[in-house]
Amino acid sequence: MGADIGDISTVSYGELHNIRDITIIANDEDHLSAIVSAVRKVPNVELEAIIDEVMEIHRGGKLKIEPKKPVETIEDLRKIYTPGVASVCRAIKENIQLAQTHTTIGKTVGLITNGSRVLGLGNLGPVASMPVMEGKAALCNQFSGLHMIPILVDTLDPTLFVSSVLTIAKTFSAIQLEDIQTPSCYAIEEELDKKLKIPVFHDDQHGTATVALAALINASRMAKLDLKKAIIGQVGLGAAGSAIARLIMKYTGGKVLGADLNEEATKRFKKLGGEVSDLKTIMKECQVVIATTGLPGVIKSEFVQKGQIILALSNPFPEIRSDDALKAGAAFATDGSRVNNLLGFPGILKGSVEAKATHFVPEMFVAAAEAIVAQTPVDEVIPDPLNPQVHLAVARSVTKAAIHARVTQDFEI
Amino acid sequence: MGADIGDISTVSYGELHNIRDITIIANDEDHLSAIVSAVRKVPNVELEAIIDEVMEIHRGGKLKIEPKKPVETIEDLRKIYTPGVASVCRAIKENIQLAQTHTTIGKTVGLITNGSRVLGLGNLGPVASMPVMEGKAALCNQFSGLHMIPILVDTLDPTLFVSSVLTIAKTFSAIQLEDIQTPSCYAIEEELDKKLKIPVFHDDQHGTATVALAALINASRMAKLDLKKAIIGQVGLGAAGSAIARLIMKYTGGKVLGADLNEEATKRFKKLGGEVSDLKTIMKECQVVIATTGLPGVIKSEFVQKGQIILALSNPFPEIRSDDALKAGAAFATDGSRVNNLLGFPGILKGSVEAKATHFVPEMFVAAAEAIVAQTPVDEVIPDPLNPQVHLAVARSVTKAAIHARVTQDFEI
Repeated sequence: MGADIGDISTVSYGELHNIRDITIIANDEDHLSAIVSAVRKVPNVELEAIIDEVMEIHRGGKLKIEPKKPVETIEDLRKIYTPGVASVCRAIKENIQLAQTHTTIGKTVGLITNGSRVLGLGNLGPVASMPVMEGKAALCNQFSGLHMIPILVDTLDPTLFVSSVLTIAKTFSAIQLEDIQTPSCYAIEEELDKKLKIPVFHDDQHGTATVALAALINASRMAKLDLKKAIIGQVGLGAAGSAIARLIMKYTGGKVLGADLNEEATKRFKKLGGEVSDLKTIMKECQVVIATTGLPGVIKSEFVQKGQIILALSNPFPEIRSDDALKAGAAFATDGSRVNNLLGFPGILKGSVEAKATHFVPEMFVAAAEAIVAQTPVDEVIPDPLNPQVHLAVARSVTKAAIHARVTQDFEI
Repeated sequence: MGADIGDISTVSYGELHNIRDITIIANDEDHLSAIVSAVRKVPNVELEAIIDEVMEIHRGGKLKIEPKKPVETIEDLRKIYTPGVASVCRAIKENIQLAQTHTTIGKTVGLITNGSRVLGLGNLGPVASMPVMEGKAALCNQFSGLHMIPILVDTLDPTLFVSSVLTIAKTFSAIQLEDIQTPSCYAIEEELDKKLKIPVFHDDQHGTATVALAALINASRMAKLDLKKAIIGQVGLGAAGSAIARLIMKYTGGKVLGADLNEEATKRFKKLGGEVSDLKTIMKECQVVIATTGLPGVIKSEFVQKGQIILALSNPFPEIRSDDALKAGAAFATDGSRVNNLLGFPGILKGSVEAKATHFVPEMFVAAAEAIVAQTPVDEVIPDPLNPQVHLAVARSVTKAAIHARVTQDFEI
């Protein structure tokens, strides 16, 4: 039926029959239904159960919020809770800095979304976005040690969004914005950044841009192209695309050509210093093309120029499949499944929190990208995102860059 | 010097000296300074270090937010995060109930404060209240299994407080309000309760009232008094006092006499069905007196009537010390250090969340109090708050009461 078969394990041996657990990777629901129908027609085989492994792994949620140390005696209770806790509260009231070391605030990041642009799925609302938020929070803790708390914001109104987040911001040492639709994500980020003295990070913009820049530096090395002198085009100027173009301009000091069907997006891009163009011109003239359009297959093989570097980042279906791009003459091609945001946000947040940064500046994202590049094996375009070393290196670089850019200060609460 | 000496442990034996760790419980900072000066004068003794155990135990915060299961392989990553997570998001979008079982929302409680009335310390602001919040969250998880997330709300304006909490409420299955000054705590609770379909619980009111009612039922049993026919007085009509009086009226069906110097408080009490009186009259006429004034020693020994039951709940210094009350003829006396809120909130929240209650009704608090009574050893006024059985019993009773009161429904998000 064209499905991939994974592990096969034996659940039980019996007199009359054996039970086996067969993992199958189907393309979609319809494909699965067709496979199930076909299996049901196999003689002497009975289909006992269909188990969705992905759903199972998410059952009960993916986070736990627990005491560091359980209370075992009344003495413990008197230290951790009343009356002992009063002296800690008084000490913090007298010296607010103590909250950094004697509460979880110093290591806590708010992960804030209204679920208005979840993955490639559009506006699902805050509740249906929670599995993504929990995944990010779980990964962030695993790779940075920070505590990330998902907060679901139930409004599409940027003003109410901002006022609510400002009101609860003292709970956190940094804020990560996530899966918020354009253009409101820009206004929300800008306003929070202006009003808060803790780092505010929109992963869909700056996280993606950081990892894309790292991949691009590595791809240029592999294709022996001088990135700082290359003609570069960005197709798709949404949150990710415009942030990528901006970070590349910061890195190279040169212009980037940009294309988008949305006029608001191209206007904004022009303001950011980009040069507005179109898909065909970019494909014809650019040595490097990055695509973040959400339009599968929009780059045809016949558009590809010999020796081009192509990053087709839309997920799960890229603008052009890597092997098609290579067959058409590209010097290097990769897609969004490789250029994983996970390489960025844990280290970027850790680095900024440890520097006690008050804001992010592009230099911090460039430093993160360079750290990712330094951690990449010679024959790869990105390092393994599950390698803890990578995240430590990113954090260290970001801390240094923040100090160098003088965006740190004694933490103000 | 009058200090209590606790454990003495030997840190090291040496040629010339030994180092010992001596735990001392001092009354306050001045007392500690005096002890330190005295120790420094002891010949042949050197004071190496003064360690504040309570501060140490709070270092680094008291909560951790972690993945239930760390990601170990790229396959794990693809199930927990993209692309696998998309199918879970889509499934929740189609059937919002799934968020109860497939995200942490179903077991998460928001613990929300502006720190405007922290313990007996007054308005410390949200950040300095965090050690109390973390303590509650840690205890809540230990005794109910629920995940409690402290949220610091940086405003004294009830309208902004309410709008911010409403905006983020979909993150939670219940809300516990904590350490909010009167009278705004009443308006905040009422407004949230009206607008949300999840249980909203103000621990300083209803948690305290529940545990006080349980202690009172037990005290009546021990003093052989029929509580339902007794003349009962409440001295102090703040958040705790007025809630206690209200819950007693619900339980006995009779009136409660109430006294407070604040006119707004007595007006409110009258509206709730209470009978306004004064301290002296209450002490003279009531068989049962509960005090929640925050005024140490305000009940003089000469006010006490023979056979009275006195709960002097102000913490850490009661309105009258239990032994003074007993000496003056009280049949039973206890103070706030025994009547611990910890007996209430974990089970009350768990019970309401498991019932999928949309609101709290007083019957649920009475049920919780009766469960605490049923778990009390015969010779005690309250059970051990560290006994997990007690919290399970409270949860079960609250669930039953919610179902009986028909305040449950298929969960709406």
